[in-house]
Amino acid sequence: MSYYPKSLERLISELAKLPGIGEKSAQRLAFHLINQPKQDLEDLSDSLLGVKDSIHFCPNCFTITDQEMCEICSDPKRDQSIVCVIEDIRDLYALERTHEYNGLYHVLHGAISPLEGVGPGDIKAKELIERLKDLPIEEVIMATNPSPEGEATAMYLKNLIAPAGIKVTRLAKGVPIGADMEFVDEITLTKALEGRTEF
Amino acid sequence: MSYYPKSLERLISELAKLPGIGEKSAQRLAFHLINQPKQDLEDLSDSLLGVKDSIHFCPNCFTITDQEMCEICSDPKRDQSIVCVIEDIRDLYALERTHEYNGLYHVLHGAISPLEGVGPGDIKAKELIERLKDLPIEEVIMATNPSPEGEATAMYLKNLIAPAGIKVTRLAKGVPIGADMEFVDEITLTKALEGRTEF
Repeated sequence: MSYYPKSLERLISELAKLPGIGEKSAQRLAFHLINQPKQDLEDLSDSLLGVKDSIHFCPNCFTITDQEMCEICSDPKRDQSIVCVIEDIRDLYALERTHEYNGLYHVLHGAISPLEGVGPGDIKAKELIERLKDLPIEEVIMATNPSPEGEATAMYLKNLIAPAGIKVTRLAKGVPIGADMEFVDEITLTKALEGRTEF
Repeated sequence: MSYYPKSLERLISELAKLPGIGEKSAQRLAFHLINQPKQDLEDLSDSLLGVKDSIHFCPNCFTITDQEMCEICSDPKRDQSIVCVIEDIRDLYALERTHEYNGLYHVLHGAISPLEGVGPGDIKAKELIERLKDLPIEEVIMATNPSPEGEATAMYLKNLIAPAGIKVTRLAKGVPIGADMEFVDEITLTKALEGRTEF
């Protein structure tokens, strides 16, 4: 016999396409789902369709929004003189959770990576430069990942932005809070030593 | 700001309802999904709705099927003289994967558990007894779980079936293949000793 009914087979294969969900997990999820009330499946199904219909990129900062302009760009209380440049939309939410930052954002949607064939034209770099012309920006914080690609992207953008007289900063690198010193890698420790502050 | 656009928030909360998917995994899945082509989301959404519409229980053995009667019950090549009694639909697929069993199945959809308020009337026990009257059954294999509930269920059913002159058997208990003897629990080892065979 073909193991499962066709529609169940199909659901399993759709679920198994999701990141981090293998064949076994997909089976477990599918068996859970067929035991749920029909309304629950409809809710999940609706939310899947709804998310794609209503969400698009903010035309200024390229984060996702369901409004014309994102909540941050359209909030007059946000500091218009500072922009934080990030690689991914999720980084915005990570920074917002700190409640420490009140400026604007700019999502690059990637980082320059010659090995993967990602050049400056493939990320929202040109858009950032254009945006800086229109805004009364005094500081650009480079919050790209502390990876070779993130560093290269930050360096590339800095060389374009600095000549305009705008201050360009980079997030501090060092030992993360709660880390066990024993397991912190050498590069992080080197950066932590280089960036040490008076106690 | 409310962290995410509403429709994204909704998708995350729907995904977080799934078993084994917490808030963080739901966020990761949702961000993955909004980056997929619309067609992919529609496929997943369709498969969710389709599974509930097309799948129902086989009226004989109570496994899931998208046909009137399941493939096993409607297959004349299956041995009609032997029924394997299992707790869950998934157990059927586990047994089918062995390619060692060619009889029929009966899915109880649970096991008797007084502690959880599950009595014989809450599982497909009566249906099994009725079915045995209509079929030329010679042997019933009790393949309920090797747990107190599974044992109690097997014992309960045996007492109903045996008087009719039908042979009732139980799956062998012992050390699972590939196990490390050091980590096999005492009860399994006791059962393995009791059931030892000549070498």
